[in-house]
Amino acid sequence: MAKDSNGAANSLQSILYERGSLRLLDQRKLPLESVYLDIKDASDGWSAIRDMVVRGAPAIAIAAALALAVEVHNLDFAGTPGDAASFLVKKLEYLVSSRPTAVNLSDAATKLQKLVLKTAETASEPKPVFQAYIDAAEAMLSDDVAANKAIGSHGARFLQGQIEGSERLCVLTHCNTGSLATAGYGTALGVIRSLHAEGVLEKAFCTETRPFNQGSRLTAFELVHDRIPATLIADSAVAALMKSRQVDAVIVGADRVAANGDTANKIGTYNLALCAKHHGVQFYVAAPITSIDLSLSSGQQIIIEERSSKELLHSDGGLGKQVAASGIAVWNPAFDVTPADLITAIITEKGVITKGVDDAFDIKGFIQKSL
Amino acid sequence: MAKDSNGAANSLQSILYERGSLRLLDQRKLPLESVYLDIKDASDGWSAIRDMVVRGAPAIAIAAALALAVEVHNLDFAGTPGDAASFLVKKLEYLVSSRPTAVNLSDAATKLQKLVLKTAETASEPKPVFQAYIDAAEAMLSDDVAANKAIGSHGARFLQGQIEGSERLCVLTHCNTGSLATAGYGTALGVIRSLHAEGVLEKAFCTETRPFNQGSRLTAFELVHDRIPATLIADSAVAALMKSRQVDAVIVGADRVAANGDTANKIGTYNLALCAKHHGVQFYVAAPITSIDLSLSSGQQIIIEERSSKELLHSDGGLGKQVAASGIAVWNPAFDVTPADLITAIITEKGVITKGVDDAFDIKGFIQKSL
Repeated sequence: MAKDSNGAANSLQSILYERGSLRLLDQRKLPLESVYLDIKDASDGWSAIRDMVVRGAPAIAIAAALALAVEVHNLDFAGTPGDAASFLVKKLEYLVSSRPTAVNLSDAATKLQKLVLKTAETASEPKPVFQAYIDAAEAMLSDDVAANKAIGSHGARFLQGQIEGSERLCVLTHCNTGSLATAGYGTALGVIRSLHAEGVLEKAFCTETRPFNQGSRLTAFELVHDRIPATLIADSAVAALMKSRQVDAVIVGADRVAANGDTANKIGTYNLALCAKHHGVQFYVAAPITSIDLSLSSGQQIIIEERSSKELLHSDGGLGKQVAASGIAVWNPAFDVTPADLITAIITEKGVITKGVDDAFDIKGFIQKSL
Repeated sequence: MAKDSNGAANSLQSILYERGSLRLLDQRKLPLESVYLDIKDASDGWSAIRDMVVRGAPAIAIAAALALAVEVHNLDFAGTPGDAASFLVKKLEYLVSSRPTAVNLSDAATKLQKLVLKTAETASEPKPVFQAYIDAAEAMLSDDVAANKAIGSHGARFLQGQIEGSERLCVLTHCNTGSLATAGYGTALGVIRSLHAEGVLEKAFCTETRPFNQGSRLTAFELVHDRIPATLIADSAVAALMKSRQVDAVIVGADRVAANGDTANKIGTYNLALCAKHHGVQFYVAAPITSIDLSLSSGQQIIIEERSSKELLHSDGGLGKQVAASGIAVWNPAFDVTPADLITAIITEKGVITKGVDDAFDIKGFIQKSL
């Protein structure tokens, strides 16, 4: 296993980048094979995103930006600074078309497009435009990893302070929120990595996460890779686990957090929160500030995507052979909403958002203070 | 679709028996194929049970008894009544060896062995011994179906009386408790069949029931077969379902009910009960009196079987290819225990056991009164 400069075991990396070179871990082959694909240009990036080589909202946006950064690194470009900006704007539009509904990807593209157009206004040749783009794309990668590491250390410190009486903690997580969904390290799984690195993790439990098995395929893969003591359970075994064994905390990620703290996340998260409440287990959401949407006053305003019935009717999350009875109707929501009153605290890269004396989160106040 | 003498559509039958002939629905091929296997003797019955053609505790015991009944129906037997009894005793011992841990099967064999030994004491030829055996085996089949139908009608009547404000009911169930697990009709699924037959069922929801998919494979198959309006959901979608849609009641079966009403049933049942409590949804256990074990004062005395990790690591409940990451540990309990305080009532063939003014079940008193 590779060691980093501090001598600690490296956590799994799904995006291997250095200037002029990008390799993506092919997540379609996980957990049985670990194969990295060379991404040489925007076209390779577009295919990798469309074909699910890379998944997870932050990871998709960063992979797209870096694919184009690799393409322009050694590009022999004849044209004005304005031509260079137009070239990048078009390539970014093309990359967005690989997953048109991925909000992070389209937000990132818009931001990068503004940057290159602005740089072109004052540049005297194309090179500074490309360089500004490359710097910004690289910053997305390092900022995401830094934010995740900050989430991890804030979360680990907070949990150690909150949970007394146990020298080492048992933590349950859901879905995949690790290196495979982000630029590296992860959000909820980042907190678990930090607890493990500090020697205070007794064990992690991960759910299978039906119907697409992100837990048994991806989170289990990351936990085994990082040699974190871990046990896989069926989603339906959560209540029995909390009753029969020590679980100190549940930590999950978030697709979207509303202004009041209501949290949309992978289907089953609300189930976990109800079980945690009944058993007096603390329940944490770990997410970067960018996942918080202050324009939503509560979770009722979050629209829940329904996914294909095939994910339940066929094995391997819909990719394998038919398992279920022909003719049965299916309800397959991708997410559910956990109300803020079931959430102990929200762990961000700026610190941990706790409840006030009114037993409510003041997320807007927290963000304003942290700016 | 076949019609019975009352003109009602027949519910699915897994055990097709008439004197001298037994056919078992091969549950290994469900839900994709419906194939019945001819069972001509104890040897065929032994293989069918060992190879999982038939599953479910009541169904296994009845299939074993009937396989031997078919064998002795036209048997040309030379010997004393005592020889006939010995023949049957040995064949029953052999049948028990097909699934040595199945309590219903071994209880039934013991009962039948006592009966034939007693009959042999007063018989003057072997025929009455065989006839007593055949009658007793056939009574097991008809008694189980009658008990299930009584559970169904008691349950349907009780639910209609309890749940006001809805003309038609939406009911959620878990695992398979239908014709495929019993001699016919089913326990929890029998209540759903009764509600449907009386025209008061709006819809049934069935969970996938990981890791062995009894819900998506078997319950969904029975519901589609009987043309009952039904929708399949992931186990983890239960809380979201109760929050977003009308669910009037949860009805589950039981592997074992303790004297205080604590109920061991398929893993995930306790999860369902916690979600039901939080959303104010009534929670019913439907089970024959034989599932109640008054020797257990509470659920704490019930030992929970742990099953193979392969059920979670491979697709198709362990029978298919590897899905999960290599090297991950697994905790795979077969059952969990739902405490009596989460259970609204217990539906039996003798009537519905409700709680007294002390908010506790008096199951012993109920059974004594119903004898």
